[in-house]
Amino acid sequence: MTLDEARALDAADPLDFARERFRLPEGVIYLDGNSLGALPAETPGQLAQVVERQWGEDLIASWNSHGWIEWPRTIAAKLAPILGARPEGLLIADSTSVCLFKALAAAMRARPERRIILTEESNFPTDLYVAQSVADLLGGEVRSVRADELTTSLNETVAVLTLTHVDYRSSARHDMPALTAAAHAAGALTVWDLSHSAGALELDLDERGCDLAVGCGYKYLNGGPGAPAFLYVAERLQKELHSPIGGWMGHAEPFAFEASHRPADDISRFLTGTPSILALAALDAGLDTFAGVNLQQVEAKASALTEIFIAEVEDRCPELRLASPREPADRGSHVSFAHPAAYAIVQCLIERGVVGDFRAPDLLRFGFAPLYNRVEDAWQAAKALGEIVETRAWDQPRFHARQRVT
Amino acid sequence: MTLDEARALDAADPLDFARERFRLPEGVIYLDGNSLGALPAETPGQLAQVVERQWGEDLIASWNSHGWIEWPRTIAAKLAPILGARPEGLLIADSTSVCLFKALAAAMRARPERRIILTEESNFPTDLYVAQSVADLLGGEVRSVRADELTTSLNETVAVLTLTHVDYRSSARHDMPALTAAAHAAGALTVWDLSHSAGALELDLDERGCDLAVGCGYKYLNGGPGAPAFLYVAERLQKELHSPIGGWMGHAEPFAFEASHRPADDISRFLTGTPSILALAALDAGLDTFAGVNLQQVEAKASALTEIFIAEVEDRCPELRLASPREPADRGSHVSFAHPAAYAIVQCLIERGVVGDFRAPDLLRFGFAPLYNRVEDAWQAAKALGEIVETRAWDQPRFHARQRVT
Repeated sequence: MTLDEARALDAADPLDFARERFRLPEGVIYLDGNSLGALPAETPGQLAQVVERQWGEDLIASWNSHGWIEWPRTIAAKLAPILGARPEGLLIADSTSVCLFKALAAAMRARPERRIILTEESNFPTDLYVAQSVADLLGGEVRSVRADELTTSLNETVAVLTLTHVDYRSSARHDMPALTAAAHAAGALTVWDLSHSAGALELDLDERGCDLAVGCGYKYLNGGPGAPAFLYVAERLQKELHSPIGGWMGHAEPFAFEASHRPADDISRFLTGTPSILALAALDAGLDTFAGVNLQQVEAKASALTEIFIAEVEDRCPELRLASPREPADRGSHVSFAHPAAYAIVQCLIERGVVGDFRAPDLLRFGFAPLYNRVEDAWQAAKALGEIVETRAWDQPRFHARQRVT
Repeated sequence: MTLDEARALDAADPLDFARERFRLPEGVIYLDGNSLGALPAETPGQLAQVVERQWGEDLIASWNSHGWIEWPRTIAAKLAPILGARPEGLLIADSTSVCLFKALAAAMRARPERRIILTEESNFPTDLYVAQSVADLLGGEVRSVRADELTTSLNETVAVLTLTHVDYRSSARHDMPALTAAAHAAGALTVWDLSHSAGALELDLDERGCDLAVGCGYKYLNGGPGAPAFLYVAERLQKELHSPIGGWMGHAEPFAFEASHRPADDISRFLTGTPSILALAALDAGLDTFAGVNLQQVEAKASALTEIFIAEVEDRCPELRLASPREPADRGSHVSFAHPAAYAIVQCLIERGVVGDFRAPDLLRFGFAPLYNRVEDAWQAAKALGEIVETRAWDQPRFHARQRVT
């Protein structure tokens, strides 16, 4: 592909309008939106409004007058179409890990006669830690198996199957409908971590019979560093599932200040304490970048960008090994390549303005955010990568000096 | 007291300089800083810097280059002197309720042969809900007693005593050193909720042998609506206490992405997921309002403001009944009065620019933030209250229309 061909594809992109919604630094090709989404153009102004006008001038009255108390639900309603969910099934709360803790504990307690949390051994480590925490508290056990052993491991001892939809390293995508159906056939519930798919792939949680799900607000949803997470609980399950952490926000009448916890009869029962309004405001602005965006087109663009990038990199750098599925339907919106010098190559790329990241031990990872990344970005990044690998430009001491990498 | 006398006291106030650090709306006497602290003058600029420069321009690199990854500890270090704690005992994380959940579960599991969580029946309701949640998960039991029954209820069945230092309604202050000593004598641990005392009273957690404590960032600490909470764990206990919610931020090597959780050997083990950097930035700016502030002077001013307010109100409104302790050492920095029409009186006061709040069923509550409230505020508020009560100005339908009140 030539640069002109790449630009022609961008000119024909039906999502081209969305790139204007972001402030992208000059001279940077940012391929790390799967780790921290870029700053939406409207966020600084919206946040300043919340800080200076709502907090600063209206003070405590803002909980009512600006509807702060409802934000965990109203912002969730903005997220709902991105996940293929009705607003009644969603809320914004806590961190992804705390939401996962709530979801797993609730699911485990809904299957008291079963004690296994089934997961994949390559699941995101923090998800494994949370699963272990829940098992420790509830007398359960985490069983971690290979992806190809999941279906056969589903039996009458499994309370809950928990998986990350798109793997944070390889980008391998699970067949969510098939695994959910298999779990249901075995009488188990499912808890999906959608951190690497929400906002990049077309999802349909309600239609696909999903039970529970969680995910990050700070990756493709552009909610800012450490943005609050989301929690999905299918409406049909809400009355039988209980949050392991009661709190006033999840009470049927938060302002009655009753001595006993009486959980709300809807998803609000999974709320606990007072959420950060500033963090919610930034997530709200992040979700506005999806206004009028067709998620089918988002997924199509994710496929196209990753496919073009793979082809260009393989053409220029035969010594890199593709570490992601080759079939677009089997991966998410990021691509990983393996190379023994992955760390140094990533540092060298960053110095040239191409921001991807390193994942131990040997992966270069590149995320494509369909709302603001272009075919030209994929092409330029592949070109820079090709030059660096060919010339061994990465082989300098400063690129090997390890820093902590997020 | 005359207005001139009030102003003379303000002119002699050694904390007078701190009021300049806040943006207070014109024409408002804000006596609700115990619910939501006022906006610090520097917060909008500092937050804009984090949003536009750090997130917007430096993007993912900010986790290292701006030290985001360390903020739960570096911001805690700024809080430490306000609580009389060494930085090693503190971190910023989650919401107060989630921190309380972690603290109570950790304490319960450190006393596996005991099953009682002892608390006060008038404790903040959400603290009771959290205690019940922990008891439900761990096979324990919550025992709620009157304040005067606490000491005699401490025995070999009590794993943990948990109390709010200053009562959210009455402002009654527990004798923290005495109750901590009594709990220790019975072999129990203590978990204190400092939400209504941190930043208003002089605390000395390390010296007083406190075990664990939590508290809000959004009240007297001025961190913004729903600011992240703090968690204190005495250094001597850190190795034996375990967070019930593991997560990558609490791992000994967060970036090693190990499959098993290996908790950090310090207080970081109580971290779970990625925190909101924007929320942390606002709390950081909130804590800057305490720079150079002497906490002994803060507590002395809390005593003086509440004492003057009580005297002025009692002088003007004999039909209001003081619902807070009369002795300054027995209360926090807010004062409550009871009146059957409390709700309507509070609404009427708000319309006149005096912002306090209502607590069911019959309390008017007024908080005095020593960093920005003045004697004149106490005097003017008492005067307005006196006029409203005397003239029954509150007795109009619009003041009785109930809204949700936070």
